[in-house]
Amino acid sequence: MAKLLALSVCFCFLVLGASSVTFRQQGEENECQFQRLNAQRPDNCIESEGGYIETWNPNNQEFQCAGVALSRFVLRRNALRRPFYSNAPQEIFIYQGSGYFGLIFPGCPGTFEEPIQGSEQFQRPSRHFQGQDQSQRPLDTHQKVHGFREGDLIAVPHGVAFWIYNDQDTDVVAISVLHTNSLHNQLDQFPRRFNLAGKQEQEFLRYQQRSGRQSPKGEEQEQEQENEGGNVFSGFSTEFLSHGFQVNEDIVRNLRGENEREDQGAIVTVKGGLSILVPPEWRQSYQQPGRGDKDFNNGIEETICTATVKMNIGKSTSADIYNPQAGSVRTVNELDLPILNRLGLSAEYGSIHRDAMFVPHYNMNANSMIYALHGGAHVQVVDCNGNRVFDEELQEGQSLVVPQNFAVAAKSQSEHFLYVAFKTNSRASISNLAGKNSYMWNLPEDVVANSYGLQYEQARQLKNNNPFTFLVPPQDSQMIRTVA
Amino acid sequence: MAKLLALSVCFCFLVLGASSVTFRQQGEENECQFQRLNAQRPDNCIESEGGYIETWNPNNQEFQCAGVALSRFVLRRNALRRPFYSNAPQEIFIYQGSGYFGLIFPGCPGTFEEPIQGSEQFQRPSRHFQGQDQSQRPLDTHQKVHGFREGDLIAVPHGVAFWIYNDQDTDVVAISVLHTNSLHNQLDQFPRRFNLAGKQEQEFLRYQQRSGRQSPKGEEQEQEQENEGGNVFSGFSTEFLSHGFQVNEDIVRNLRGENEREDQGAIVTVKGGLSILVPPEWRQSYQQPGRGDKDFNNGIEETICTATVKMNIGKSTSADIYNPQAGSVRTVNELDLPILNRLGLSAEYGSIHRDAMFVPHYNMNANSMIYALHGGAHVQVVDCNGNRVFDEELQEGQSLVVPQNFAVAAKSQSEHFLYVAFKTNSRASISNLAGKNSYMWNLPEDVVANSYGLQYEQARQLKNNNPFTFLVPPQDSQMIRTVA
Amino acid sequence: MAKLLALSVCFCFLVLGASSVTFRQQGEENECQFQRLNAQRPDNCIESEGGYIETWNPNNQEFQCAGVALSRFVLRRNALRRPFYSNAPQEIFIYQGSGYFGLIFPGCPGTFEEPIQGSEQFQRPSRHFQGQDQSQRPLDTHQKVHGFREGDLIAVPHGVAFWIYNDQDTDVVAISVLHTNSLHNQLDQFPRRFNLAGKQEQEFLRYQQRSGRQSPKGEEQEQEQENEGGNVFSGFSTEFLSHGFQVNEDIVRNLRGENEREDQGAIVTVKGGLSILVPPEWRQSYQQPGRGDKDFNNGIEETICTATVKMNIGKSTSADIYNPQAGSVRTVNELDLPILNRLGLSAEYGSIHRDAMFVPHYNMNANSMIYALHGGAHVQVVDCNGNRVFDEELQEGQSLVVPQNFAVAAKSQSEHFLYVAFKTNSRASISNLAGKNSYMWNLPEDVVANSYGLQYEQARQLKNNNPFTFLVPPQDSQMIRTVA
Repeated sequence: MAKLLALSVCFCFLVLGASSVTFRQQGEENECQFQRLNAQRPDNCIESEGGYIETWNPNNQEFQCAGVALSRFVLRRNALRRPFYSNAPQEIFIYQGSGYFGLIFPGCPGTFEEPIQGSEQFQRPSRHFQGQDQSQRPLDTHQKVHGFREGDLIAVPHGVAFWIYNDQDTDVVAISVLHTNSLHNQLDQFPRRFNLAGKQEQEFLRYQQRSGRQSPKGEEQEQEQENEGGNVFSGFSTEFLSHGFQVNEDIVRNLRGENEREDQGAIVTVKGGLSILVPPEWRQSYQQPGRGDKDFNNGIEETICTATVKMNIGKSTSADIYNPQAGSVRTVNELDLPILNRLGLSAEYGSIHRDAMFVPHYNMNANSMIYALHGGAHVQVVDCNGNRVFDEELQEGQSLVVPQNFAVAAKSQSEHFLYVAFKTNSRASISNLAGKNSYMWNLPEDVVANSYGLQYEQARQLKNNNPFTFLVPPQDSQMIRTVA
Repeated sequence: MAKLLALSVCFCFLVLGASSVTFRQQGEENECQFQRLNAQRPDNCIESEGGYIETWNPNNQEFQCAGVALSRFVLRRNALRRPFYSNAPQEIFIYQGSGYFGLIFPGCPGTFEEPIQGSEQFQRPSRHFQGQDQSQRPLDTHQKVHGFREGDLIAVPHGVAFWIYNDQDTDVVAISVLHTNSLHNQLDQFPRRFNLAGKQEQEFLRYQQRSGRQSPKGEEQEQEQENEGGNVFSGFSTEFLSHGFQVNEDIVRNLRGENEREDQGAIVTVKGGLSILVPPEWRQSYQQPGRGDKDFNNGIEETICTATVKMNIGKSTSADIYNPQAGSVRTVNELDLPILNRLGLSAEYGSIHRDAMFVPHYNMNANSMIYALHGGAHVQVVDCNGNRVFDEELQEGQSLVVPQNFAVAAKSQSEHFLYVAFKTNSRASISNLAGKNSYMWNLPEDVVANSYGLQYEQARQLKNNNPFTFLVPPQDSQMIRTVA
Repeated sequence: MAKLLALSVCFCFLVLGASSVTFRQQGEENECQFQRLNAQRPDNCIESEGGYIETWNPNNQEFQCAGVALSRFVLRRNALRRPFYSNAPQEIFIYQGSGYFGLIFPGCPGTFEEPIQGSEQFQRPSRHFQGQDQSQRPLDTHQKVHGFREGDLIAVPHGVAFWIYNDQDTDVVAISVLHTNSLHNQLDQFPRRFNLAGKQEQEFLRYQQRSGRQSPKGEEQEQEQENEGGNVFSGFSTEFLSHGFQVNEDIVRNLRGENEREDQGAIVTVKGGLSILVPPEWRQSYQQPGRGDKDFNNGIEETICTATVKMNIGKSTSADIYNPQAGSVRTVNELDLPILNRLGLSAEYGSIHRDAMFVPHYNMNANSMIYALHGGAHVQVVDCNGNRVFDEELQEGQSLVVPQNFAVAAKSQSEHFLYVAFKTNSRASISNLAGKNSYMWNLPEDVVANSYGLQYEQARQLKNNNPFTFLVPPQDSQMIRTVA
C-alpha cells in the first residue's frame, strides 16, 4: 500500500502571504500593544513525500508577543517524520490518527531490546523483514518507543531528538507549538528546527530575516547560504563523519542527505511500513480510549529517562469541566504531567456546544495560543484599556493568540466547536470574571454595588445570577433567573 | 460625613512633564548606563471622586533600567479604589491611614459568610443597611477581606484582582511599585492596569508609545483608540455580558461603565460607608500596633488561598537594624512573608536621624527603588567606573532608582528622614562597604594595606574604626577613634 | 625578589581591533543567526604593575549571542589582583600557577582569626611583619582565605567581592567568563567590574557604547566621563567616606585611589609578599594533586558562608571520560559543586590526543564558550540549516562560542590539545550524535534505515560501528570495523 505517491494538493492558505513581507522591526518594544488581534492561518506549506508541514509566520506581532511559533503537520499512511530537535520546548497535540513516536534523551540507556530470534514473547507489530531473510537480522536495541492516539498531548523538551510515525490508514494531523521565549532557549527568539536527516530546509528558515550585519572579514554578501537546505550532518565534512561514525563514504553520503530524491522532504514514506519493537499487548491498550495509559506512572522513582511524555486530553477522556448542555474542557499541566514543569508549558482542550458560551475570563500567568480544531466560535478579546481588539468568528484551522491578562469570551457557532489552547506556563491558571466562583462571585456585595453603581438587588444579581462556572448553556435553553 | 465632595487640588508635581515627550528609543541596549541618575517626582495626577492617583513616567531611563513602574494613590474618607488587576507583581506600602482591602484569588472559595440575620456573633463594622430594611438583606459570601494600617506592605500578585477602601477620617496614602520586568509578566515591559469597573482610562495609558506598526489590513490610523477609556467589561458586547452574567441590559450598562458620572474615576466615594463582613474582635486588633498581626501565620498548611499577603514594617514594629543615635531599618523578604517568593520582590523601611549616615553599600542581587516618605537626605550613588551619578538631596515625595551593584550612601538632612525601598528580588541582600562586618572589615589586613597602599596601622583603622554596621551616628556625637 | 618591576611586553593580540569600531546595533534581534562564527583573540590588554588583563570585545556577535564576556589575566610573583565585584556570575579557570584568593560574602562572619602572639599553632605562610616589630602587630580577623592551584575552577557569584594573589614564582594564568545574560544580572547585558581599590578604569569600559541618550537637563555632551577611571570609593565625597569609615582624610585619599602610582592598575605587586593567616598543614595539602581538596565538603549543613567555591578539573584529577588512545574530559556542574546552581554555570576541561576526535555533538541546554589552552584542533560547527559556520583550526589562545543546539566536532592537531569550555547552565548536558549511546545508537534500526535511505546492513553500521562514547582514537590506530 501507499506504493504510488501522488503529491496531493497542499491544503494551505496563503492568505497572509503578502503581509509576511513587512517584517517586524528589530527588538521592538511594545510588541504586546495591539490595536487589533488577527486570527491567523498558516501562510506556508512544505510538501514532503509522506505528508506536509504548514507554518505560521513567527514574525507576526501576535506570535512575537506570545513568544511562540506554530506549525501543523500531516502524516499519511506509513509516513515517518524524520528525527529533528528544536531550540525551545514544544507541545504537540494529536488532533487525528495514531502511531508511534520516539524521543532520544542523551545519557539514557536503550531499554527496548530485541529478543533472540524465534522467541515470540515480544514482537514487531508490523509485517517485517520484507525482502530480507529473517535469520540474517541481528538484534536491535534502542530507547523507548511511545504509542500515540487522537487527543494526545506530547511534550518534547528543547534539544531532544524526536521522530513520529503513522502506521494506520487514517492521516495523522497534529498541531505543534514551540515556546521560543522560554528561558530554556538561550538563542535568540527565532524558532529553529535542527533536522537530523534529509536535505530539506528547516521549516521556519524562510521567515528568517536577513541580518544586515557584515562579516568582519569583508565578504559581505557571500552568496548568503546556498539555501538548498540540509540536515545537521550535511554541515560536517566527510572526513569527520567517517571518523565519528566509523563508516565508509557511501553511508556518509546518505547521512549528509546527498542521495535523496527531490521530493522526500521532512516526511518520508516507509515502503512496507516501519518495523518497531513494542510489547504485543501494548498496541491494543494504547489505542483504546481511557485516560489511564498503560505507560503512565508518575512514581517517585521517575527520572528523565523514564518520564511520561504524553497525556490524553481528547474527547474520550474524563473532563475537568463538564456541563451536558454547554460542553467540556480538559486541561493538562505540571500536576498531571510533571515533565511540563521542565518545559514551562500546559494545554487545554475544549468542546463547546452551539450557542453555549465560555464566560469572560483571563489567563493570569500565561499567554494562550488557541487553535480552532473544528467548527467556529464568536470570540471577543479585550485589552487593558477596555478596547475590544478581537471580535470575529474564529474558524476551523485558524489560530488566535490571547495575551496574558487580556479578557476573552467565546460563543460557539457550531454544533461542537473544538479547540486546543497552548499556554506558556506549566501551571497556567485562568480567572473567570462571571459565573460561580468567579471574580464577581467572590467580591463583597457592597463592593460590587459601589464599584458598579448598582442597587443591592442588582449587585446580588450580578454576583449570583450565573450558577455556571466556566461554560454557560445557550440562552434559550434556560430562563434568565432572578434571585429573590 | 463626607457627603460634600470637593475635588481638592491635586498635589502633583509636573516637573518632568516636558521630558516625557522624549520617549526612549525602542529596545535600547545600554539602558543601565547612566551619566546621571535623576530623582523623580510624579509627572501626572488623575483625580477621582474619592481621591487621586499620581504616576511616574515608566519610560524614564531609570525605571526602564530597574524594570519597575511607580505610582502613589490617596484615598479620602469612605473612598473605594475599585477592583483592578495588573500584568506584573506589585508591592504597596501604606504610608498613612488604615482600612480594608481584598484580593480575589481565582479558584479559591468564598470563606467569609454572612450569618443568619439576627445573629450577632459576627457583625459588619460600619453602620450598615442604611436606606434599606435590614430584614430584606440576604446573606452574602465572599473571599477574605484584609485590614491594613500604617506601615503595612501589601503583596499583590500579577493577575489577581485587588480593591482597597478607606473607612477612617485620615486619608490613606500609599506608594505602589509594579515589577514589569518580572518573569511573571509575559507581555512587554509596559505597566498595565486592567480596571474591572468604571470608565476611566488606566493610569499608565498616557505613557504608552504609539506603535509605528501598521495593521495588516491597511487601516493605518483608524482613530487610534477612542481614548475615552473603559474597564475590561466595556470591551465586551452587551450580548456576551448579558449571557455570561445572566443579567438584564440595565445591569450590563453599569458593568460596562456606561452610567458613570464624569468625575468618578478609579476611586469612588461610598455614600454612608462600605458595609463589610469582618470578625468583630478583628477590627480592634489590626489597628493596634505590633508586628504580630492576628491573621499572620505561615504554617505548613498555607496555600495560596490562605496566604498571608501583608506585613507591617512601619515604625511601630521592631527594627531589624537599630541604633538609638542613628536610626532604624526594617526589611521584609520571602523569609518573613513567603508570598514574596512568588512575586520576586522585597522591601525595606528606614528612618535615619539628622546627620546620621547609611554607610556606603550596594544591592547585590536587586535593583532598588527608594521613595522618600518624609524629610530629605543627601544621597550619593556611584557607578562601576567610579563616577558619582547622583549627588543631591533626595526630597520628600521624590523617588530614586539605585541600580543593582551601584554603590550608595545617604546622610539624613532632617530630624527623621523616612523612606521605603522596593527591591526587585524576594531575597534582596546588601553588601556594606564600611563598618562592622562590612567588605572592608572582612578583608585580611594585608590585603587592605596592599590594595590601598596603606601602612598597617592605617589599614587597621580603615578596617576597624567604624564599629557600626549600617547606620552611623552623626560625627559630632562621637569622636574619631583611633584603634591603638 | 620582584623589587625591580619591568613592565614586560603585553602579549595581547590586537587582531580584531579594527572590527571593534563597528558596534552592534542596539537590541538587535537575530543575534544568534550567523553566517560564520569567528574564533576570537583578546583585542585589548591592560598592563598593571603585577601582571596584565586581556579582554575580548563583548560586543562581538558571538559573545552577544551567548551572553558572556571573556577575559584572561596573568599574575606575576607576589602579584595581588585588588578586590572587585561584578554584575554577573563568573567562573575562573586556573590554567597555571597557584596562590590564594578571597571572596567576601556579606553577612558572613570573619572566621579566620589570628591567634595570640607567640602561639605557633597557626602561622602566616610567608615571611611576615617585615619592617615592623612583630610584637606591635595586633590580631587580625577576616573571612576565609582559599588556596588555589592549577586546574581549579573558581565560582564567583554576582556582587561578591573577590581578590586573588600569586605567592609562587610561576605566573598565575587564568581565564574568566562573566555570564552577563544571567537572570542574576538585573542591569543591561554589559559586563561591569566594580573595582574596590585603585584608580584604573574597569576592564570592559572601553567597549561601552556611547549612549545616544540625552540627559534630560540639556547638557548633552558634558565631557562624557573624565575617563580617568576610579574605584567605587572614588565616587564618594571625602566627607561621606570619612564619616562612613571613621578615618582621617589621609586614609580616605588612598581609599579613593588618589595616591596611586600611574603604573599600578588592577594588579599590584606586594613588596615582600602578602602575609595571610592560613592553617599550616593546609598549604601543603592544597598544592598536592588529587581532586579531594581538604576544604571540600558539601554536607547538609552547608550555607552560603561556608559554601565550597572551587573544584579542580585539571589533568591531575580523575577524568569523567577517558580513553587512553584518545584523551580525557572532566566536567563540573551543580552536582559536583552546588554553588554553581546559584550561578547558572558549569564547565568542562578536555585533553584530546593528536588526530583523535570529539564526535559530533551539541549542547542541549547551554551556550558553550571554548578556550584553547594549549595546542590546536580542527573544529567544525553546524547551524540549524545544515551550514558549516566554522571550519578552522582553533588555536592556542583563541576562544570560540558554540551556541546552544549548534552541532560541533573537533579533531586534535597537537600532541595534546587542551581546552576549557564554560557553559551557561549549571547542569549543561550534551547530546552526542555518533558513537556509543548516542542519538544514532538509540534510534530503532528501522528508523535509521528509513530516515537515511539505507539498507539494514548499512543502518546497523551507522548505528553501531563506533564503540566509543565521546572521544574516538585516531583512524590509523584502528581498523574501520564492519559489524557482521
